[in-house]
Amino acid sequence: MKVGIIGAGRIGKVHAKNISLFVPEMEIKAIADPFMDEETEAFARSRKIPAVSRDAGDILNDPEIEAVLICSSTNTHADFIQQAAAQGKHIFCEKPIDYDIQRVRTAIGAARDAGVKLQIGFCRRFDHNHRAVYDMVRRGQVGRVNLIKISSRDPEPPPLAYVKVSGGIFCDMMIHDFDMARFLAGSEVTEVTAYGSILVDPGIGEAGDVDTAVVLLKFENGAIGIIDNSRKAVYGYDQRVEVFGSEGCAQDANDLPSTATLWKADGSVSAAAYKVMWDRYTGAFVSEMRAFADAVANDRPTPVTGEDGLYPVLMAAAAAKSLREGRPVKISEVDV
Amino acid sequence: MKVGIIGAGRIGKVHAKNISLFVPEMEIKAIADPFMDEETEAFARSRKIPAVSRDAGDILNDPEIEAVLICSSTNTHADFIQQAAAQGKHIFCEKPIDYDIQRVRTAIGAARDAGVKLQIGFCRRFDHNHRAVYDMVRRGQVGRVNLIKISSRDPEPPPLAYVKVSGGIFCDMMIHDFDMARFLAGSEVTEVTAYGSILVDPGIGEAGDVDTAVVLLKFENGAIGIIDNSRKAVYGYDQRVEVFGSEGCAQDANDLPSTATLWKADGSVSAAAYKVMWDRYTGAFVSEMRAFADAVANDRPTPVTGEDGLYPVLMAAAAAKSLREGRPVKISEVDV
Amino acid sequence: MKVGIIGAGRIGKVHAKNISLFVPEMEIKAIADPFMDEETEAFARSRKIPAVSRDAGDILNDPEIEAVLICSSTNTHADFIQQAAAQGKHIFCEKPIDYDIQRVRTAIGAARDAGVKLQIGFCRRFDHNHRAVYDMVRRGQVGRVNLIKISSRDPEPPPLAYVKVSGGIFCDMMIHDFDMARFLAGSEVTEVTAYGSILVDPGIGEAGDVDTAVVLLKFENGAIGIIDNSRKAVYGYDQRVEVFGSEGCAQDANDLPSTATLWKADGSVSAAAYKVMWDRYTGAFVSEMRAFADAVANDRPTPVTGEDGLYPVLMAAAAAKSLREGRPVKISEVDV
Amino acid sequence: MKVGIIGAGRIGKVHAKNISLFVPEMEIKAIADPFMDEETEAFARSRKIPAVSRDAGDILNDPEIEAVLICSSTNTHADFIQQAAAQGKHIFCEKPIDYDIQRVRTAIGAARDAGVKLQIGFCRRFDHNHRAVYDMVRRGQVGRVNLIKISSRDPEPPPLAYVKVSGGIFCDMMIHDFDMARFLAGSEVTEVTAYGSILVDPGIGEAGDVDTAVVLLKFENGAIGIIDNSRKAVYGYDQRVEVFGSEGCAQDANDLPSTATLWKADGSVSAAAYKVMWDRYTGAFVSEMRAFADAVANDRPTPVTGEDGLYPVLMAAAAAKSLREGRPVKISEVDV
Repeated sequence: MKVGIIGAGRIGKVHAKNISLFVPEMEIKAIADPFMDEETEAFARSRKIPAVSRDAGDILNDPEIEAVLICSSTNTHADFIQQAAAQGKHIFCEKPIDYDIQRVRTAIGAARDAGVKLQIGFCRRFDHNHRAVYDMVRRGQVGRVNLIKISSRDPEPPPLAYVKVSGGIFCDMMIHDFDMARFLAGSEVTEVTAYGSILVDPGIGEAGDVDTAVVLLKFENGAIGIIDNSRKAVYGYDQRVEVFGSEGCAQDANDLPSTATLWKADGSVSAAAYKVMWDRYTGAFVSEMRAFADAVANDRPTPVTGEDGLYPVLMAAAAAKSLREGRPVKISEVDV
Repeated sequence: MKVGIIGAGRIGKVHAKNISLFVPEMEIKAIADPFMDEETEAFARSRKIPAVSRDAGDILNDPEIEAVLICSSTNTHADFIQQAAAQGKHIFCEKPIDYDIQRVRTAIGAARDAGVKLQIGFCRRFDHNHRAVYDMVRRGQVGRVNLIKISSRDPEPPPLAYVKVSGGIFCDMMIHDFDMARFLAGSEVTEVTAYGSILVDPGIGEAGDVDTAVVLLKFENGAIGIIDNSRKAVYGYDQRVEVFGSEGCAQDANDLPSTATLWKADGSVSAAAYKVMWDRYTGAFVSEMRAFADAVANDRPTPVTGEDGLYPVLMAAAAAKSLREGRPVKISEVDV
Repeated sequence: MKVGIIGAGRIGKVHAKNISLFVPEMEIKAIADPFMDEETEAFARSRKIPAVSRDAGDILNDPEIEAVLICSSTNTHADFIQQAAAQGKHIFCEKPIDYDIQRVRTAIGAARDAGVKLQIGFCRRFDHNHRAVYDMVRRGQVGRVNLIKISSRDPEPPPLAYVKVSGGIFCDMMIHDFDMARFLAGSEVTEVTAYGSILVDPGIGEAGDVDTAVVLLKFENGAIGIIDNSRKAVYGYDQRVEVFGSEGCAQDANDLPSTATLWKADGSVSAAAYKVMWDRYTGAFVSEMRAFADAVANDRPTPVTGEDGLYPVLMAAAAAKSLREGRPVKISEVDV
Repeated sequence: MKVGIIGAGRIGKVHAKNISLFVPEMEIKAIADPFMDEETEAFARSRKIPAVSRDAGDILNDPEIEAVLICSSTNTHADFIQQAAAQGKHIFCEKPIDYDIQRVRTAIGAARDAGVKLQIGFCRRFDHNHRAVYDMVRRGQVGRVNLIKISSRDPEPPPLAYVKVSGGIFCDMMIHDFDMARFLAGSEVTEVTAYGSILVDPGIGEAGDVDTAVVLLKFENGAIGIIDNSRKAVYGYDQRVEVFGSEGCAQDANDLPSTATLWKADGSVSAAAYKVMWDRYTGAFVSEMRAFADAVANDRPTPVTGEDGLYPVLMAAAAAKSLREGRPVKISEVDV
């Protein structure tokens, strides 16, 4: 299966590398980026990608290419989905599809109507720890799901320039947790209440965002969800989920680089958490790409559908509105 | 120091036993309960308590008794505080003082005006694990406090008869967590949002309460708090706190009866949690009574003051109102 | 049941206190110590022990006293056992009975012939963690026992004066682990190999002892045991057991004062271990005394018999001989 | 750097795959195996290895090939080392070099005299957990090393056919632990005492081996080591190390596939250990090959030298002799 990669930034390169190393079913024929430069060309050569281009059209119009990976900036996702669908190509698209609900719906519809696969890049679903919790929940080992708790904290805030255009903490950071919450719950969220504070960097506040946020989720089935985010955890990347149900409680601990511990006079010291997201989710990126290859090659449903791409955007919109207006917001209020 | 115990129910007996075993500074002179029966009389003899009575007045009017423990039903607390204060006796009162804010204020004022010690029975402040987290926070080891998370789940719901009169989950269960949140934060709560569901027992819903509840707290200093409660955790008593700050994150794990683990073919199995609250907090009950004895004997401030008894009641009232009205409620709205 | 305590040193006082607090079936009538002083007399008063004496005979000859606790120096144990047995008194004796095998046998025989209970003070059998491992093993959860590993490390070496007379590390320290090994294995040791080094304090070497020791045990049933001891672990009292079998592996973690953890930039820090043995085994001392009271009151076998007192002494003798002669030593070689 | 692989069994293929994926400095030019078959040829094609052969000579005599990986059966290692050295090729050789001490010395000497790099395949030195413990020790965080404890248990015994020719548990299994012990101690072993039992499978006993073994090590610097091995741990691959010293204790926990835990009424269940060695040490195999590539490319000493290949063989010989003769055996007795 020949694939093309649109967007050669950090995430595009991660996927390219993972495909070349671990996804033998796929062969990258081309990579395109409007800012194509020498470094990316060298990267393409090192990964034996035969074609580079500044024009995504070269990929979208190449009849040999069966599937595309959309790794470009968010504002281009919806268009590229539509164009790729029009060309009958299967699509892996980084999250989020878009922040405009109508555009998201249109893009999803285009893929559906064209009968092509569409998978959204919610990589955490493929993480070994979260997946083990998910499996416990799906096997019924916690019984009926009553509470879901998700902690997600980054080692460092992103640059302020990014904060200003990212859509805010709910869109660029908590969106992963919105997806994780639905994934674990197996039920849709109907209402959201958000609390937010500026505790890490006043500059983030001046940029119109918060850096510490907590969101309550009401699920259709009565379960309640809690997500907390912080832009800065000095101890590193902190990612934990917990699902409490009628028959038990499944949870994972934060992932650490080693199990080594040092017992000293004033306490025992264990490893610090990962400081870099790519180290933390190395395996998850590989697994999601394998899953996409499998879906395309064996005509199976993708494990993260277009609809899975829509709902977290709705939740982010509701959270932002809740924070702004100081009240619970129903998903139906933002789902226009 | 001679003390009298008003109320010989479960908690009154626990305090009586702990005093007789572990608080040599105190000597229990009398125990009173309107439902005094043979079993309680036998208990008093076994603990070498010389006087039993059906009338709390026998204690309140005994000039030899320096301090009273008010362990009677909640609706009597405020009155007994006022009467004990009028007699110049130091007071340990079980939580909550009352659910009527005015009565709480009056009772606290009475103790203050009389110049007697008043300590409220928020025993969890004395738990070895929560205290260790508290110490880390107070020593500044987490830096500025940004997030507080508290999980509190009971092994079994109380009898429905109790649910009907207890004031609901916020008053009879989460009130401990409201206290813990303030204790850990070192800052006051200004606003509360509550979500609740009936997932454990429909009978609890019929009794007008929820059995699963999550509350968001907004603190004066910008920190955000999260409390989750469930009336039923099949795996036992689950009590965990986490304080995330600018310099680190302090947390405790649930307390287990042993550290033993069994590694088997299908996973490693560790001890189940405590199934009984009294087992879980054995040491905390002893420590709180020692602290009270110390405050009285050495004329030190009590570690849980009358005001510490007031705020959780306000938070419970706000949470109940938030759940009822489906919106965030400011503490000032209920603080009449 | 009236009891008398012979020996009012640290361990005698611990038992006295525990009985007065937690063993209502027992009443301490007298305590005797040749070095009886004011401090001990004050202690006796505080525990409401009516009689103090310098002469153990006052206890041994008191017909009202049903049971004695022998907490005096080791060299007096065997004689006191014989005298107490002659008076028909039940006996709790601190470990070890003696280091002379013949004297041990004679003492055990005296108790047996007199039909009195004899319990030896191997308190670790009653520890909540080790007991939980034991229970897993006895319930068959590890299947056939193949390996037993025991770590036992003290926070600080004892005074050199003690080292010179204690009989050495195998007698005064590892003897607990010898007992634990038999307890967990449910099989007798047939051979011992000891390695020892002086790594903590050269003074210990000058006193003729080692401060770091490892012993291999061969059990009758083919299982193999490993014990390691160090006189000094800077991180505190370290006590762990592991039983590996055909169906699984049971083990406990070192006991810590709290479950609190602090996540910082350079790692997560958990509580240091206990620095004081009495804190670590608080509950075990209570449980062993309750078990003795139960054995006497209900005419049940004691949970640590005279024979249980003999075997660890044999193992210690064999270990010392092995270290001296640089070869494996069979238990039969020292069992004269 | 062009490399050739001699031996296309399981371990040869693992190295080939890792090099093609993760070691860009190396290019595999040829793979040779006397039992070359279609499956291996297909494997070679899939990894883009241009040449396959039944004759190791084709690799040894190829002037383009700079380095060889010797992954053939143990009895061929020493000869191939000598031949490769004679051709001036750098050498990565699987452990052990040989069981004949003279042949080991000759092979090491040949590599030294030829001035080629020689690295032995003790992959566990590169494991993330063991390495973290090693780093703690080397940084001095445990102070002076007093005790080393290593547990190593396999999920299943190897086939009896293998047991008969492998040289026994000390040679084929504990040899990794002998290496680890030296690696962690930073001191040489002078004496060994071995205990062994047949507790897993009587067939192993009939084949002249034991399936459960414990070895005591005496180090030159006074430290004491303990290694325990079992051919069968039902709960999976169990690998733990502990280094206890004057300033602290470094240890790792067994590596688990996930951190997920399930809290149930009868206890909390964590993930079972890895059941397959290749899964457990995935990263270690990659790291050791990168280290070899680095040593060759940058003319650095290899991290596991020929001498590091010799000592574990001596320890295995001493352990076997100790078990046979029932006495401690000095390394000098087997170092002929």
